[in-house]
Amino acid sequence: MMWSLGSSYKKITKMMVKNATRKMAVGWTKESKRHLSSKMTTAPNTWKNNQSSQILLSPPLVSLDVPEIWGANSNHYDPPSSPKISNVQLATIIDGKAIAEEIRSRVASDVKRMKAYIGKVPGLAVILVGQRRDSQTYVRNKIKACEEAGIKSVMAELPNCCAEEDVMTALLKFNEDPSVHGILVQLPLPEHLDEEKILNMLSLEKDVDGFHPVNMGNLSMRGREPLFVPCAPKGCLELLIRSGMEIVGKKAVVIGRSNIVGLPIALLLQRHHATVTIVHAFTKNPEQITCEADIIVTAAGVPNLIRSSWLKQGAVVIDVGTCPIEDPSSEHGYRLVGDVCHEEALRIASAVTPVPGGVGPMTIAMLLCNTLDSAKRVYRFD
Amino acid sequence: MMWSLGSSYKKITKMMVKNATRKMAVGWTKESKRHLSSKMTTAPNTWKNNQSSQILLSPPLVSLDVPEIWGANSNHYDPPSSPKISNVQLATIIDGKAIAEEIRSRVASDVKRMKAYIGKVPGLAVILVGQRRDSQTYVRNKIKACEEAGIKSVMAELPNCCAEEDVMTALLKFNEDPSVHGILVQLPLPEHLDEEKILNMLSLEKDVDGFHPVNMGNLSMRGREPLFVPCAPKGCLELLIRSGMEIVGKKAVVIGRSNIVGLPIALLLQRHHATVTIVHAFTKNPEQITCEADIIVTAAGVPNLIRSSWLKQGAVVIDVGTCPIEDPSSEHGYRLVGDVCHEEALRIASAVTPVPGGVGPMTIAMLLCNTLDSAKRVYRFD
Repeated sequence: MMWSLGSSYKKITKMMVKNATRKMAVGWTKESKRHLSSKMTTAPNTWKNNQSSQILLSPPLVSLDVPEIWGANSNHYDPPSSPKISNVQLATIIDGKAIAEEIRSRVASDVKRMKAYIGKVPGLAVILVGQRRDSQTYVRNKIKACEEAGIKSVMAELPNCCAEEDVMTALLKFNEDPSVHGILVQLPLPEHLDEEKILNMLSLEKDVDGFHPVNMGNLSMRGREPLFVPCAPKGCLELLIRSGMEIVGKKAVVIGRSNIVGLPIALLLQRHHATVTIVHAFTKNPEQITCEADIIVTAAGVPNLIRSSWLKQGAVVIDVGTCPIEDPSSEHGYRLVGDVCHEEALRIASAVTPVPGGVGPMTIAMLLCNTLDSAKRVYRFD
Repeated sequence: MMWSLGSSYKKITKMMVKNATRKMAVGWTKESKRHLSSKMTTAPNTWKNNQSSQILLSPPLVSLDVPEIWGANSNHYDPPSSPKISNVQLATIIDGKAIAEEIRSRVASDVKRMKAYIGKVPGLAVILVGQRRDSQTYVRNKIKACEEAGIKSVMAELPNCCAEEDVMTALLKFNEDPSVHGILVQLPLPEHLDEEKILNMLSLEKDVDGFHPVNMGNLSMRGREPLFVPCAPKGCLELLIRSGMEIVGKKAVVIGRSNIVGLPIALLLQRHHATVTIVHAFTKNPEQITCEADIIVTAAGVPNLIRSSWLKQGAVVIDVGTCPIEDPSSEHGYRLVGDVCHEEALRIASAVTPVPGGVGPMTIAMLLCNTLDSAKRVYRFD
C-alpha cells in the first residue's frame, strides 16, 4: 500500500529535520544526518504521486522511525517554544465533526470506487452483548455511519446472560466470513465473559478496533507497524496533525491509561517522537505535570478535571472524555461533557476540541477508515 | 502458579494503601477503597504460605491492577517525598552481582528439585548468527550461567551470510523440541535478515526474551499478564524492589526507548503505577525532565550522559548503559562504562547501580528465571 504525505505532515517532517539540524549542531552524528536527509530527499516524490488517494494525514508508523542517536550535548537547554497569544485571543476550536465528515465522505468515495472496479465493498461485523443503553447508541451510530459510507454491516446481538461459547460462535463465524473485513466487539462486555479470551480469538486481520495484543505490541515497538491503530487514539492523532500541530520533540501528557484510549494514544505519540508522560489516578500532583505540556490528551472520564491551572499557555488540548451529566434544559434531560473545563481552556490553550463534536465523531470515522483499509488489504485494491 | 510476596513488595503494597487512603481522604470513592482493602486482607496469607518458593519479589502484573478512579480533588498538591541525605552520605551501591548470584542459586536449587521430583530440567536454545564479538561474549555468559544452574542449553551457530530460511529452520526445530522451554535469538541479527519476521515465528510459550509482540502487548495492557517480561527490564524492576524502593506514585524517567530495554521498562513501571516519562533523542531539555524524577532508568548507551545536574537529591538510579571504552590500564585494553557519571551520582542519588556489576548480571539471572518458569509451566511443576 502506497502512502503519501499531506501538508500538515510535511510541517512535522520539516520540524524533524529542523530539530535534527539543531541537534547535529550540538553533537549529532553524521549517520543520523545521512538517515534524515535521505528520508527528506525521497519523500517529496511520494507525496506528489499519491496526494489524491490519501484519506488520512497520519503516516505509517515505521516511516517515522529514525536512528536513536544521542548527541554528546543532548543536555543542551532549548526551551520549548509556545505560540504567543494575546490576552484576548481565544483558542481555535478543532472541529472534529467537520473533519470527520470530510474523512467519511472520502471513505465513501473510495468504497464507491472499489465497488465499481472490483464489485466488492468492505464489511463490518458488530457483536453486541446485553442491553447497555450507551453501547446500543454507540453501535447504532457506527452502523449508521457504515451505511452512509456504503460499507456493509452485519450485527450479532446476544442477550446479557449469554454464554461465552455463544460469543465465540458468533466471532468465529465472522472470522471465517470473507465478506467481513472488520469485527468489532462492543465493550464493555458483561462481567461473566472473559474479555481477554474473546478479543484474543478475533482474527488479527479483522481487528479494526486494534485491541488485539499483537496490534498493541506492534503499536508500541519501533520498526513495527500494527495492522490497525485503535480508533479513538488514531482520531486524536489525525486531529493534531490536521491542526498543524508539531508533535516531534513536544512535551505530551496523556491523562488516563485505559487499554482503549490512554495507553494507545501515549504509544502513538511516542512513535511520533513526542516526549510522553502518562498521568493516572496514582500520579502525585498531576496538575503540575500537565501544565508543562505542549499537547494534552485527556481521557479520564472526569467532568471538568482539567481547569485553567492545568494548562500551559498555547497548549493544544484534545478532550476524549465523554460524560453524560444531568441537564433538565436539554432535550434528553442530560448533556455530554468532557474532562476539560472548556470555557477556561479557550482562554489558555491555542487549540481545543469540543465535547461533543471533537474526538467522538473522529472515532467513528477512524473505524470506517480501518474497515476500508482492511478490505483494501484483502483485495489488494489501492 | 502460586505467588508470594517478599518484604520489599509489602512496602510497596503498604504504600499503595497509604496512597489510596490519602487519596480517599481527598475524594476517592468507596469502590476503590473496597477493592484495595480486599487486596490487602487476602494477600498476607499468600505471602506466608509461599515465602519459601519465591525466587523473585516482582509480583504478577495483573495483581497490581486496581480500578482507575480519579478523585474529584486529584489536583490536590502533595509534593513527592525524597529521602533526606546529609552532604557527606554517599548513595547505596545496588549490588546487582550479589543479588543476581542469590537468584541464580535459588534457580539452581529449583532446577535440582525439578530433576529430583519429575526427572526433567529446563532447556534453553540459543541461536547465534555471525561473528560479532560482543554477541559471542553475551551468548557464552548465558550458556555458562545455564550450566551452573543445571539448565540444559543447546546452541545453533549460523554464519553471518546464512539465509533467512536457515535461521527459520533452526528456530522451528527448537519450537517443536519438547526439551527446549526457552529460545533466544541473539540480537542484533545481520542486516539482511528480517528480525521482525524471525522473532514472530518464535513460539510464544518459549519467548523467554519477551520480545514477541503478544508479550509486549500484554506487558502494556492493564488486566493482561505477559508470559515473559524482557530480561533487562525485569532485572531493573527486581533491583528497585529489592532496594526497598517504593514505585507506586513515584515520578520515573526512562532514558532511551529501545524495544528491548527502554520501552518495556517504561511499560513495566507504568504497570507498577509510577508516573512514567520516556526521554529520547528528540526530547527537548532532557536534563530538566530527568532531574525531577524519583526513579531514573537509563539505557541510552551514551557514556557519562547523566551528570549530577540531571539528578534529583535522593533519586534511585538504575544504569542499563554498557559501553566499552578504551583503557590501556585494564587487562583487555578497555573497560565498560554506563550512561551515568557514577562518581557524581554517588553524591546526589540515594541508590545507584554500578557498571559493570549492576543490571548486566541481573539480565542473565532473569533469563534463567524465565526459562525455569517456562519449564514449570509446561510440566505444571511448582
